[in-house]
Amino acid sequence: MNEHDAADSLWDLAERVAATYRRDGVINRIGEKDLPSQQMVVRILERLLAVVFPGYHGEPVARDIDLRRFAHDHLVLLHADLASVLEQTLRFSRRHGCSCAALWADGTVGDEGDGGRSLPETEIPRLSRRLALEYLEHLPAIRARLRADVQAGYEGDPAAASTDEVIICYPGLFAIAVHRLAHPLHGLGVPLLPRIMSEWAHHRSGVDIHPGATIGESFFIDHGTGTVIGETAVIGDRVKLYQGVTLGALSFPRNPDGSLVKGGRRHPTVEDEVTIYAGATILGGRTVIGRGAVIGGGAWITSSVAAGERVLGGSRGAVRAGRALGSE
Amino acid sequence: MNEHDAADSLWDLAERVAATYRRDGVINRIGEKDLPSQQMVVRILERLLAVVFPGYHGEPVARDIDLRRFAHDHLVLLHADLASVLEQTLRFSRRHGCSCAALWADGTVGDEGDGGRSLPETEIPRLSRRLALEYLEHLPAIRARLRADVQAGYEGDPAAASTDEVIICYPGLFAIAVHRLAHPLHGLGVPLLPRIMSEWAHHRSGVDIHPGATIGESFFIDHGTGTVIGETAVIGDRVKLYQGVTLGALSFPRNPDGSLVKGGRRHPTVEDEVTIYAGATILGGRTVIGRGAVIGGGAWITSSVAAGERVLGGSRGAVRAGRALGSE
Amino acid sequence: MNEHDAADSLWDLAERVAATYRRDGVINRIGEKDLPSQQMVVRILERLLAVVFPGYHGEPVARDIDLRRFAHDHLVLLHADLASVLEQTLRFSRRHGCSCAALWADGTVGDEGDGGRSLPETEIPRLSRRLALEYLEHLPAIRARLRADVQAGYEGDPAAASTDEVIICYPGLFAIAVHRLAHPLHGLGVPLLPRIMSEWAHHRSGVDIHPGATIGESFFIDHGTGTVIGETAVIGDRVKLYQGVTLGALSFPRNPDGSLVKGGRRHPTVEDEVTIYAGATILGGRTVIGRGAVIGGGAWITSSVAAGERVLGGSRGAVRAGRALGSE
Repeated sequence: MNEHDAADSLWDLAERVAATYRRDGVINRIGEKDLPSQQMVVRILERLLAVVFPGYHGEPVARDIDLRRFAHDHLVLLHADLASVLEQTLRFSRRHGCSCAALWADGTVGDEGDGGRSLPETEIPRLSRRLALEYLEHLPAIRARLRADVQAGYEGDPAAASTDEVIICYPGLFAIAVHRLAHPLHGLGVPLLPRIMSEWAHHRSGVDIHPGATIGESFFIDHGTGTVIGETAVIGDRVKLYQGVTLGALSFPRNPDGSLVKGGRRHPTVEDEVTIYAGATILGGRTVIGRGAVIGGGAWITSSVAAGERVLGGSRGAVRAGRALGSE
Repeated sequence: MNEHDAADSLWDLAERVAATYRRDGVINRIGEKDLPSQQMVVRILERLLAVVFPGYHGEPVARDIDLRRFAHDHLVLLHADLASVLEQTLRFSRRHGCSCAALWADGTVGDEGDGGRSLPETEIPRLSRRLALEYLEHLPAIRARLRADVQAGYEGDPAAASTDEVIICYPGLFAIAVHRLAHPLHGLGVPLLPRIMSEWAHHRSGVDIHPGATIGESFFIDHGTGTVIGETAVIGDRVKLYQGVTLGALSFPRNPDGSLVKGGRRHPTVEDEVTIYAGATILGGRTVIGRGAVIGGGAWITSSVAAGERVLGGSRGAVRAGRALGSE
Repeated sequence: MNEHDAADSLWDLAERVAATYRRDGVINRIGEKDLPSQQMVVRILERLLAVVFPGYHGEPVARDIDLRRFAHDHLVLLHADLASVLEQTLRFSRRHGCSCAALWADGTVGDEGDGGRSLPETEIPRLSRRLALEYLEHLPAIRARLRADVQAGYEGDPAAASTDEVIICYPGLFAIAVHRLAHPLHGLGVPLLPRIMSEWAHHRSGVDIHPGATIGESFFIDHGTGTVIGETAVIGDRVKLYQGVTLGALSFPRNPDGSLVKGGRRHPTVEDEVTIYAGATILGGRTVIGRGAVIGGGAWITSSVAAGERVLGGSRGAVRAGRALGSE
């Protein structure tokens, strides 16, 4: 094949690719200016981390700095970035018919019945600025939560030499911090953004916490790779999880047309002071792990466990055999 | 120790390090210009994603753009980059005696018997341009596959609020997309490049799909961290996997000299409409999971499962005990 | 709300955030110049990888290069960067009372009894340069170790087409390489830095190896996502692990005041030529997996396994049932 043939082939192929763009609506967003910018979401998260862990994240902070001004400088930039990405997100969601509580939760404009599409587009900038402010009001409380989480990590792992190490090195703490930051945005009914945040944390830490999950105080996840916490999970105080733990769904009810019911309680409740070891899988919206229970590694649990119970893990070291095991 | 001693020590140490370079052939590539550039492979993948998900990956796409020109501009750059990195890869493989089907699959030049080393080096640029073109011809079909995969993700997870969320946030979809893009390159007999692609996806998503795996339509992996799909696995249509699932090898046959036989079927077959829950391990080239079967979380399977069967997972929530469990 | 109200709200919020900075000591490092720079640690690691895998990591290496000068140029820069980040780390640790063997192991200055705080601060630069040099002396031996690890990867996986592929693509090899580089720094009693190194590898590879773990020759981890190797684990020669394997702690002894005892043997011993399949969990400082034993996928082991034994994995494919499994 000579160079002319190759050039022809590329033009011909371009036409066939373009035909798929004209035909398919699902995996294209051509002409869409308002897809929320992931880059801006990451910039916002990095700034939020600098505000909640000053000196650990972001630039070093000088000893004689005016702390109020330091906080204010960050908050002003956060407010502007958040308002801008919220505006994108709300325009995008309104246009594509995604039901979005933030569009009607205002009470004065927007309508739940039509997914907020009755909200005039001209109201979106004002609504975005208000939501950004409402969101930022959570920061002092998030700081208090994170302090307790760091302490729980230090006290829960003999390998942790200092709270500094927990903040700097522990991917579980990182994922919890991003969850503490993403959860209130989810609570405000904002679509997509909190999930972009939680997936950034998942990508960086291996821990997948849906921003809808409700998590109490002094939470610790050690190692964390592969741990999954579902959207409607509810976790109490002083709970400790290890890597590879799943708090997942047991069954997915369907609508009469066969499509899955979106919403409803699908993930377990984990009460205070429960410990769940590596690789345990706990499933179902009616499953409750009672206060102080301990779940062994690799356990597979689909019904409730009483307070204080100890559930053994996978195979128990006593089961042995002479035949093949996953090797020749 | 003073500064002079330190300087002497570094010269002395440099000599001992250099001696290991002279002695060891395995972990050096000194004087090698043709190690395929990982940076360029990532650039190619990012552009491929912009072509298959326009507007979601890469720059926003203007509404009034000429779609054929948009596709063509990307294809021309992809063809150039692919031809260049294929040239590196084929030179590298030919020089280091790696058997490489792309060097002889042409039929006219190269010879399977000598791993393609009879192909004159001067033929490599032409062959690379041809392979690049042949590869790009797969893009329209890949687009159709990905559309069905996105739909499967949205329909398979009640937590997915929109197909946008699946494309933007789901690491499983990301890993599947890179697999759809890497698999045809593997099919053309190109070494190394498809594996660099799949490891980039593994690094970013936690999902490890060997580019050799054969995967049907409407495939969905939820959460995905720790899921491994081996080189010779064959997966049917409408299959759904969760995090931590292994489709692995059961035994590794050895050559008379004790070395492992490379090639041959080592990984399971998963038929249409199978669901495999978190942490299940399925091993062996003769293991077939029959159509519509459901495999529970944490199951360990080394023999076939009949169509429609339901295999329970790890320990089953009823096994409890008062003794230590992985804690004091 | 108008713009003036928003501005007022942000000043008011800034004051409440600043108040948490004044109140909380645990998650702030305000006025701290010596928090070790993670960016510099990553730069050091990337250069170390270029020295131990020349041509594979870092820039291509010209054929006619003077190998001793190549090594020396890197070593001089490594020595400077290491001395600088060690100086930060030792100042930081001394100031915050972290017990740090590097501060007294010198023998001539510093005192174990006071965690090294008796070491005059003016001694820190000299000590840092000496530790940097002592650390770099390990590089020739690390090269030999890594050569054997690469060979073990190639010989242990039928899917590996070449040692090049193992070095370029295998996340397990990457994590092992960073461990080989971080472990001697841990051995020198340096806090924080080795953990920052191991977490960088964990983030990139999904494999979490504590820098304190002792690992023999020809070590191989296939796939690797979710594998965790604890601080006091001891692993023999020619051991092979798969993804999701935990070598963890079984119980955490407590001090009379209820706090966890830091230090002491908490993680298992794995003798030569053991293979551990995907998702197995092995716990406890007294647990010994005897020479040549094979541990099945998903096994959960809390007591010793004799040499040569084969322990079956999770549920064994024969256990089937008609009831719900983690699905409707």
